[in-house]
Amino acid sequence: MVGGITFYEGRGCRTFKEPKPCYQSTIARFVQEYPIKSEAVIAHIRQANQGDVLLENTHPFTRELWGRNWTYAHNGQLEGYKKLPVGHYRPIGKTDSEWVFCCILYQLAEKYPKKPTNWLTVYRFIAKLADQLKLMGVLNMLISDGQYMMAYCSTDLHWLTRKAPFGKAKLLDNDIEIDFQQHTQTTDIVSVIATKPLTGNENWHRIQPGSFVLFHFGKRIL
Amino acid sequence: MVGGITFYEGRGCRTFKEPKPCYQSTIARFVQEYPIKSEAVIAHIRQANQGDVLLENTHPFTRELWGRNWTYAHNGQLEGYKKLPVGHYRPIGKTDSEWVFCCILYQLAEKYPKKPTNWLTVYRFIAKLADQLKLMGVLNMLISDGQYMMAYCSTDLHWLTRKAPFGKAKLLDNDIEIDFQQHTQTTDIVSVIATKPLTGNENWHRIQPGSFVLFHFGKRIL
Repeated sequence: MVGGITFYEGRGCRTFKEPKPCYQSTIARFVQEYPIKSEAVIAHIRQANQGDVLLENTHPFTRELWGRNWTYAHNGQLEGYKKLPVGHYRPIGKTDSEWVFCCILYQLAEKYPKKPTNWLTVYRFIAKLADQLKLMGVLNMLISDGQYMMAYCSTDLHWLTRKAPFGKAKLLDNDIEIDFQQHTQTTDIVSVIATKPLTGNENWHRIQPGSFVLFHFGKRIL
Repeated sequence: MVGGITFYEGRGCRTFKEPKPCYQSTIARFVQEYPIKSEAVIAHIRQANQGDVLLENTHPFTRELWGRNWTYAHNGQLEGYKKLPVGHYRPIGKTDSEWVFCCILYQLAEKYPKKPTNWLTVYRFIAKLADQLKLMGVLNMLISDGQYMMAYCSTDLHWLTRKAPFGKAKLLDNDIEIDFQQHTQTTDIVSVIATKPLTGNENWHRIQPGSFVLFHFGKRIL
């Protein structure tokens, strides 16, 4: 794995990252064995390239806003991103992604100096920011405050929701079949967002470029 | 383990936390096996009590300031801490420790709107803040930006520095003996700060209450 994964547990979250390409890394093995019980998960996995092998450049990124942990992951590249204002959210690494994340949080903090109450309005505001940001390049992004999960599509994002009765899913990239009935309760609602469909026997929805979907604890609401 | 540990790797850092008392937890086993190569580590381990079993209440805490990850852990309790100003560093959990950490970062950001260049002055300023904060209760704290590590003592903190020729250390709480020569290079300088001495055959220094020590990549400089 080259990449990282963030699990929310209540208001807290855990992140595991592997910035270097390791066929069998300690972190990757750990994540496989970790007993996941999380309301929201963001993962970012990619082909390794030279410019991005430091821990501080590895997605997802997490920062605090309004007393909540916000997490961000991004596929794509943006030109001229260093002109974007970030206020007191200063990038730690050197990626366009972290810079854009800092910019989004800064704009949110400026727009809502106090913790907002209407979260749909907040996420619509993020979508408007993303409409502008995607003019600078490619911006397929996931952003979450642990309760809501937003996917904004610039070129490629797909999603689906699984709920009872849970069936079996066949992964596209190998022969593994997963029986979700063995891993779920009947009241569970689980949505998955990915750049490309991950399974061959399920109905993935493509998000139209320039639009977004919003989930609340696994259920699509916008 | 009930507690957490943060490892710096360059400008990035990794945190592993176990908020619930588990005799053999997945996280604790992982940390034991994790191949540590870090310039700075902060750990916080304690007896479990009921008020602190959520992930967001578990030390250490990490936040960004001046484009660096700052990490904080604290032993002690403070009265009336909710009156302390935190600015845009809003606490995520409900501990006095995170609140105090937010207050320290906020005061630093106010004092140095731009990234400072004289880090000794910065840490002396933190010590002055701690002098005030400890009037509110007990404040044995560790704070680091990944390059420097500061230990401020309110009641109990001890430290030592290990360097070549490395010897063997006998842990106080069990029969284990560690031969540091097997785990170090001759140029390594490793300092350890703990509430109480961890080994019986080494010369631990007690930090005087109301004073601090400062380390830079393992070497004591103040």
